[in-house]
Amino acid sequence: MRTQEQYLADLAKMKHNVYLGGEKIGRDDPRVVHASRAVCTTFSLAESEEYKHLLTATSHLTGKTINRFTHIHQNMEDLMIKQEMTRKLCALVGGCIQRCMGIDMLNAVSVVTKDCDLKFGTHYYENYLKYAEYFQENDLVAAGAQTDPKGDRIARPAQQWDPDQYLHIVERREDGIVVKGAKIHNTIAPYADEIIVTPTRYMGPDESDWAVSFAIPADTEGVYMICRQAEVAKRPENVDAPVTNVSDIESMTVFDNVFVPNDRIFLCGETEFAGPMALTFALYHRHSYTGCKPGIGDMVIGTTALMADINNIRKQSHVKEKLVDLISVAELVYAAGIAAAYKSTKAASGTQLPDVTYANVGRRHAGHNIYHEYNILCDIAGGLAATLPAPGEYNNPEVGDFVRKYIRRKEGVSEEDIYKAYSLASDILTGELFQVLLVAGVHGGGSPIMEDIAIMGTYNVKEKMAYAKHLAGID
Amino acid sequence: MRTQEQYLADLAKMKHNVYLGGEKIGRDDPRVVHASRAVCTTFSLAESEEYKHLLTATSHLTGKTINRFTHIHQNMEDLMIKQEMTRKLCALVGGCIQRCMGIDMLNAVSVVTKDCDLKFGTHYYENYLKYAEYFQENDLVAAGAQTDPKGDRIARPAQQWDPDQYLHIVERREDGIVVKGAKIHNTIAPYADEIIVTPTRYMGPDESDWAVSFAIPADTEGVYMICRQAEVAKRPENVDAPVTNVSDIESMTVFDNVFVPNDRIFLCGETEFAGPMALTFALYHRHSYTGCKPGIGDMVIGTTALMADINNIRKQSHVKEKLVDLISVAELVYAAGIAAAYKSTKAASGTQLPDVTYANVGRRHAGHNIYHEYNILCDIAGGLAATLPAPGEYNNPEVGDFVRKYIRRKEGVSEEDIYKAYSLASDILTGELFQVLLVAGVHGGGSPIMEDIAIMGTYNVKEKMAYAKHLAGID
Amino acid sequence: MRTQEQYLADLAKMKHNVYLGGEKIGRDDPRVVHASRAVCTTFSLAESEEYKHLLTATSHLTGKTINRFTHIHQNMEDLMIKQEMTRKLCALVGGCIQRCMGIDMLNAVSVVTKDCDLKFGTHYYENYLKYAEYFQENDLVAAGAQTDPKGDRIARPAQQWDPDQYLHIVERREDGIVVKGAKIHNTIAPYADEIIVTPTRYMGPDESDWAVSFAIPADTEGVYMICRQAEVAKRPENVDAPVTNVSDIESMTVFDNVFVPNDRIFLCGETEFAGPMALTFALYHRHSYTGCKPGIGDMVIGTTALMADINNIRKQSHVKEKLVDLISVAELVYAAGIAAAYKSTKAASGTQLPDVTYANVGRRHAGHNIYHEYNILCDIAGGLAATLPAPGEYNNPEVGDFVRKYIRRKEGVSEEDIYKAYSLASDILTGELFQVLLVAGVHGGGSPIMEDIAIMGTYNVKEKMAYAKHLAGID
Amino acid sequence: MRTQEQYLADLAKMKHNVYLGGEKIGRDDPRVVHASRAVCTTFSLAESEEYKHLLTATSHLTGKTINRFTHIHQNMEDLMIKQEMTRKLCALVGGCIQRCMGIDMLNAVSVVTKDCDLKFGTHYYENYLKYAEYFQENDLVAAGAQTDPKGDRIARPAQQWDPDQYLHIVERREDGIVVKGAKIHNTIAPYADEIIVTPTRYMGPDESDWAVSFAIPADTEGVYMICRQAEVAKRPENVDAPVTNVSDIESMTVFDNVFVPNDRIFLCGETEFAGPMALTFALYHRHSYTGCKPGIGDMVIGTTALMADINNIRKQSHVKEKLVDLISVAELVYAAGIAAAYKSTKAASGTQLPDVTYANVGRRHAGHNIYHEYNILCDIAGGLAATLPAPGEYNNPEVGDFVRKYIRRKEGVSEEDIYKAYSLASDILTGELFQVLLVAGVHGGGSPIMEDIAIMGTYNVKEKMAYAKHLAGID
Repeated sequence: MRTQEQYLADLAKMKHNVYLGGEKIGRDDPRVVHASRAVCTTFSLAESEEYKHLLTATSHLTGKTINRFTHIHQNMEDLMIKQEMTRKLCALVGGCIQRCMGIDMLNAVSVVTKDCDLKFGTHYYENYLKYAEYFQENDLVAAGAQTDPKGDRIARPAQQWDPDQYLHIVERREDGIVVKGAKIHNTIAPYADEIIVTPTRYMGPDESDWAVSFAIPADTEGVYMICRQAEVAKRPENVDAPVTNVSDIESMTVFDNVFVPNDRIFLCGETEFAGPMALTFALYHRHSYTGCKPGIGDMVIGTTALMADINNIRKQSHVKEKLVDLISVAELVYAAGIAAAYKSTKAASGTQLPDVTYANVGRRHAGHNIYHEYNILCDIAGGLAATLPAPGEYNNPEVGDFVRKYIRRKEGVSEEDIYKAYSLASDILTGELFQVLLVAGVHGGGSPIMEDIAIMGTYNVKEKMAYAKHLAGID
Repeated sequence: MRTQEQYLADLAKMKHNVYLGGEKIGRDDPRVVHASRAVCTTFSLAESEEYKHLLTATSHLTGKTINRFTHIHQNMEDLMIKQEMTRKLCALVGGCIQRCMGIDMLNAVSVVTKDCDLKFGTHYYENYLKYAEYFQENDLVAAGAQTDPKGDRIARPAQQWDPDQYLHIVERREDGIVVKGAKIHNTIAPYADEIIVTPTRYMGPDESDWAVSFAIPADTEGVYMICRQAEVAKRPENVDAPVTNVSDIESMTVFDNVFVPNDRIFLCGETEFAGPMALTFALYHRHSYTGCKPGIGDMVIGTTALMADINNIRKQSHVKEKLVDLISVAELVYAAGIAAAYKSTKAASGTQLPDVTYANVGRRHAGHNIYHEYNILCDIAGGLAATLPAPGEYNNPEVGDFVRKYIRRKEGVSEEDIYKAYSLASDILTGELFQVLLVAGVHGGGSPIMEDIAIMGTYNVKEKMAYAKHLAGID
Repeated sequence: MRTQEQYLADLAKMKHNVYLGGEKIGRDDPRVVHASRAVCTTFSLAESEEYKHLLTATSHLTGKTINRFTHIHQNMEDLMIKQEMTRKLCALVGGCIQRCMGIDMLNAVSVVTKDCDLKFGTHYYENYLKYAEYFQENDLVAAGAQTDPKGDRIARPAQQWDPDQYLHIVERREDGIVVKGAKIHNTIAPYADEIIVTPTRYMGPDESDWAVSFAIPADTEGVYMICRQAEVAKRPENVDAPVTNVSDIESMTVFDNVFVPNDRIFLCGETEFAGPMALTFALYHRHSYTGCKPGIGDMVIGTTALMADINNIRKQSHVKEKLVDLISVAELVYAAGIAAAYKSTKAASGTQLPDVTYANVGRRHAGHNIYHEYNILCDIAGGLAATLPAPGEYNNPEVGDFVRKYIRRKEGVSEEDIYKAYSLASDILTGELFQVLLVAGVHGGGSPIMEDIAIMGTYNVKEKMAYAKHLAGID
Repeated sequence: MRTQEQYLADLAKMKHNVYLGGEKIGRDDPRVVHASRAVCTTFSLAESEEYKHLLTATSHLTGKTINRFTHIHQNMEDLMIKQEMTRKLCALVGGCIQRCMGIDMLNAVSVVTKDCDLKFGTHYYENYLKYAEYFQENDLVAAGAQTDPKGDRIARPAQQWDPDQYLHIVERREDGIVVKGAKIHNTIAPYADEIIVTPTRYMGPDESDWAVSFAIPADTEGVYMICRQAEVAKRPENVDAPVTNVSDIESMTVFDNVFVPNDRIFLCGETEFAGPMALTFALYHRHSYTGCKPGIGDMVIGTTALMADINNIRKQSHVKEKLVDLISVAELVYAAGIAAAYKSTKAASGTQLPDVTYANVGRRHAGHNIYHEYNILCDIAGGLAATLPAPGEYNNPEVGDFVRKYIRRKEGVSEEDIYKAYSLASDILTGELFQVLLVAGVHGGGSPIMEDIAIMGTYNVKEKMAYAKHLAGID
């Protein structure tokens, strides 16, 4: 397993293809390093006594101890631990832990390459096995690249007026393929070692060029990472806080005629498996959401309770009811993840698959409620979350005393603690980073309607109708 | 194990203390027999190949095969099976399976008698053991009697202007105690063999007379069962349906100076354990709700899908979205039950305790959504659920043809099937029985606010505040 | 203006074509008379000092004082008073006032016949004028018959496998037309003097036979009223209450080759005006809903407050919040009706038209919230609303004392008042009549999705997009 | 009336007491000027042909034409026009129009000074009259300063451990009073000419020092404005847009022993009128919210429709349903404002008072739904609203072409328009300014619970209970 330092050193060596703030930058740029802190945590805590039981696993390929973020789930317990790990880490770092994307991809690849080989006699599972061992051995971080720009939303890939709106094969060579297109919403991309690409949807028989999946180093020739960063504003030392360490970079990753060698290909034209690849990734990722959303929920619950406490209203009945509301959202989502693990099944590859219904109702409940959760925090925190004077005024020699005096709340809580607590509430409710997280809370792992489609696609409605027909006396 | 016939025969022998329809009746009265059909199912299906794996268990007391409705849960698996059994049976009978009350009581008694003995050196656990073995041996059915009338809602038991508003001890004798009061909302009481009584709330140190728990035969001298029945209207043979077999009797059970012998007492003055007894029963019963509400949900899902099918609108996007809504409610509640079992722990008595948070967020979600579920069925079924001509008109020689013609919907579905389907929707949406079930869906196992109290009483809000403080930089 | 007695006497004279309880009955059958009580109120209160300012109007046709339920709205004030009258009467009678259907129809007919004549040179407006004067002169009550059975929901009228699924013209004669089909959900039909028929939807150019509107006496040859009654259970005298006077009859009204004379025709083949006729009736009826739903809301608010009062929890903060929720629903709907009247416009006929957007958002809000309102009442009333012993037990010499003792709540409220209050809650929450009202609350005046269609059909979304484009800097 | 230029020139002349970005600045600082643009619009449009009918009024004091933002409402029509003006202006400027605070204050002052004089023989109404004329004559802009820091939320003003947590009188002199304290959440304060101060709550008999209301110039000695600015990020010229002109400054306004001359005092110790002053301002301000929230709603509706249009999903049924949801929120709130105006009454001063119930249910509905509205926009806009590459990348010579290519959606919409549209969605969903607006949408004009209190304080629940008692047969 790598240390956090090795990870950062490896990033620094990569070729420059990251664009941020109007310029091309290296991966040792302070902004990238800052954004990588959540991922760094996944390295550093793997060595800690307190967290290593969560953050490490035993490879089913090599028998070695590996970072759980490179592990292929082998049983129910693996899924349960992944969920718990994800929740804990998100609550600790104050947001998305970011490293799940790649490993959710790799688990999906393990399942679908096997199924495809079994059906078509292809050899993608061998590619996967070799790649997975390399991935675990080197303790790699991968960006998951699934979502295509999609152009006109009601046209299928092959019908787009611009064929590149979905990433596709433009050349098939003896030693590999050349692909063109872009993938968007790629969290983590500029500080990942690798990119794993899968289709984003079902493909029709006429769309074999779009049925493609592979993994390549993130600095491969022809790859461009066009980035947008969201962060929490820095603060002067006396009111500084760990929350300012959190940031996020999202990438529009362009593949401008990129070559992919044969042994890195996981799907190449088998349209029948494009959909399953997309859905299996989504399934793993939605199960991850049943961990991360409760983790973010924990942060919102805690911040809400903290604001209530400072304002001395924790015992008010409407406050308690709102806290229970927050708790119920977080725990129902988490319960759905537990159920998805408990009802999990084994794929042909031996990989453990979460239950589709439970992973989806869990993710759906999270997505339907995240604005509501922020709303409750807003309700309890009060207007000062939006009107709190900035640190420049807090520290101003002329008016700082006024600021400190007039933010005071219940006796016994220091002005500094109140200021820090309100600053956190202000960051969550009005700062760009946490709104990006909010949008991700709605759309990450599939927009709300995608979960409905996944549920309706597999749920046994007929069985339920049979109950109704029986009661109604219909044969 | 008894057969259904033995159960009914035993009921018929009991002393008359049931009041219904303005008269005192025997337990062989057709109305009582009709209402007992759900319970009968728990006997008959225990013998069936298809259901016996759910409906039977091995007694931890005697090692014998017993009906699961008399079983004390010994491990996670027991809780999982109980939940699954409950869901299946409720969907099958089209409503509440009714027999859970007593066994949820007995499980709670097993836990709290042990804890009380350990603390105070009492001997209630011995009483419980002897009673439990008798209960299992005779495959008994018990009514759970918990809810007191409660009089003035903001006064505690000892402060009530009428002290009998909470059931209490009026005399302590050498051979037992005499109690007075009433318990309300007693589903199943007139067709149960036994009544198990527990307190309904915490008791203060001055309320030892109200801290009382015991079990007695349902026809004990001084017990009066004042009943209300809700049923589905009978129909002529050609449009008859199993749903008309469903009915429910609720009892206000009066204890008019009833003697309870010493060996049937489970709590007698230990105020400290009144609250735990109330909450532990509620915990088991809320966990049962994570099975029964999804079972009723299955019926609503199925009926909604059936109505959509008949009207040929199953593929409409708003219909699919509403079905997913129904599915999500049912499965989130069920997932919470799974999580409650998965995170269950062992009490000092060896009995398995569901997790408090998950059992409560599950029950809470069910209670918050049941009106919403009926609303969706109403939305999809359309107005005819309320305006469907009655069977008298359907079978009328003059106008029956018109009725049959004008209820037709999509081609290929017979007039009879449509009429039966709409009759079911009409029963669910406008019939008394299913509205009683709706009210029970809100209040059964504790009114909505009780779950909030249970959650806030145990949830680790401090841990969540610690996350927030850490992020905010507060020590 | 007629008296209530004259109205009932006129009903008694009509030919028998009402089917209820498996038999053909006269309109002097006690069940019909019972159901007509709400309508009777519209006659009796028109004579009362307290209500005549609401219940009477001055005819714009004759200048005479007429019952407002026969009035054609001439200005904003008329719409405001109609809304207020409707709210008051619904709260008074405890449900639907029932007489609005016919007059909402007649107002729609006044508008569309004029528009049609202006466009096509037809003479329907003359028919309307003559009919309206007759209607006012005789103080008539009309059933509105709009909703066709509709058969396969995704097929248009002309595409139905049974052409009669939408009422249509089967013969055009010199002196009139012959129609065939049925109309469902016809509240009031068996105790109305007249039936006014309009199309239920847009019609295509190939559907001229289905584009038909007319008025005929309710006992016309070939008309069959197939009825379903919902009522509140009778009670013994000592616990009797006005709520038991409420009942409702819904009719599936069959037109089996019914002749309509020329002077009673309002639309006959002009497909272009079928949609406007349907929508204009819906518009008036949804505006009526902005009066009646708040009236029913008043009853639910009052019952909820009464239950809270009896239980001594009126000051609890969660109770107050729930009351505000109920108040907000009722008053927002009422406000939408006021806005619809305030923004009303004059049709070519001189009839005042409520604003489409406000009438629809009001009706939509009502329909979306009625289950929520019942849910709140259920929450506050508690389980006893479903388990209250029946009057037979309340009055039973053996156990009546127990019932009366154990329903007592806060000191000072008599057992009789508590019993009556709970009986009301029980009727509303579990009785058939109020569930029929609940279904009507969702579907009456157009199912929820119909309001969405009405809103999207007229709302100026382009103007809103222009704001967005301006802010975005898009030309 | 002043021109926009005169207003800015007057600001520039004021003494420096504004603190922003860590320094004391003049009101001609570019940040302040930028923030004042919304207010500037209220001057410039008052001269435009298109808007002057909304933006001007005739003074009831002088008969002169004045800016409506200085007008005292004299009749229903005034309230209707104010509401319409507010909606239009908010939609135009893309957010809060900001100038309503002061005039809502002055209307409240007109009412309560008169009532106080009538009761106590004070002379505050004369002060008001003189001040109002001066205010109108000079076309002034006032900040409304109502909300005190409030310290410990469950302690009343006189019980606070720091007495300054509510602004209060510290000295009574012959020529005036000296006050100390602070007011928070003061939108507009650094670019207002005047500050009008009122109490924020009811005061007890022992709190006469806290029952104080007055107006002073914003740069009075001892006043400190401690500010926080939120704005939309600037953009390069080719993708610039009017939305970047919007910004907001909120002030914590400190009164450090500030002298108020006698003729500027509106309340001084009359505790009985502190509550009415607070509530009357809230009433006017909540009525203003029934204009501004629909205006902001218009912007959200328009942006949502624009995003749907670009993505070619405007006709999808779930999109239409969500647009109707947005429309319903905006129009129900607006309808409540119309109803509040329609049911308005005249105060003793002659000032027109909106109806309390309607103003409050409208504001409440807005506050309960604003997160939901953003949620819908987020849902339709998709993840790109959070991951859109920044302008630096859009204009980058190396990767700009990629950005422009891969944001394209339906054919025929230019890359520039798409980029601008997504930039707007991104600003609304993730930018600080619009989140401040979101928090204001919840708390502005009184936090959600305050509306519940206002409604319960005045609503005639007894009348509703009377309906229930009548139906139940209770005398």
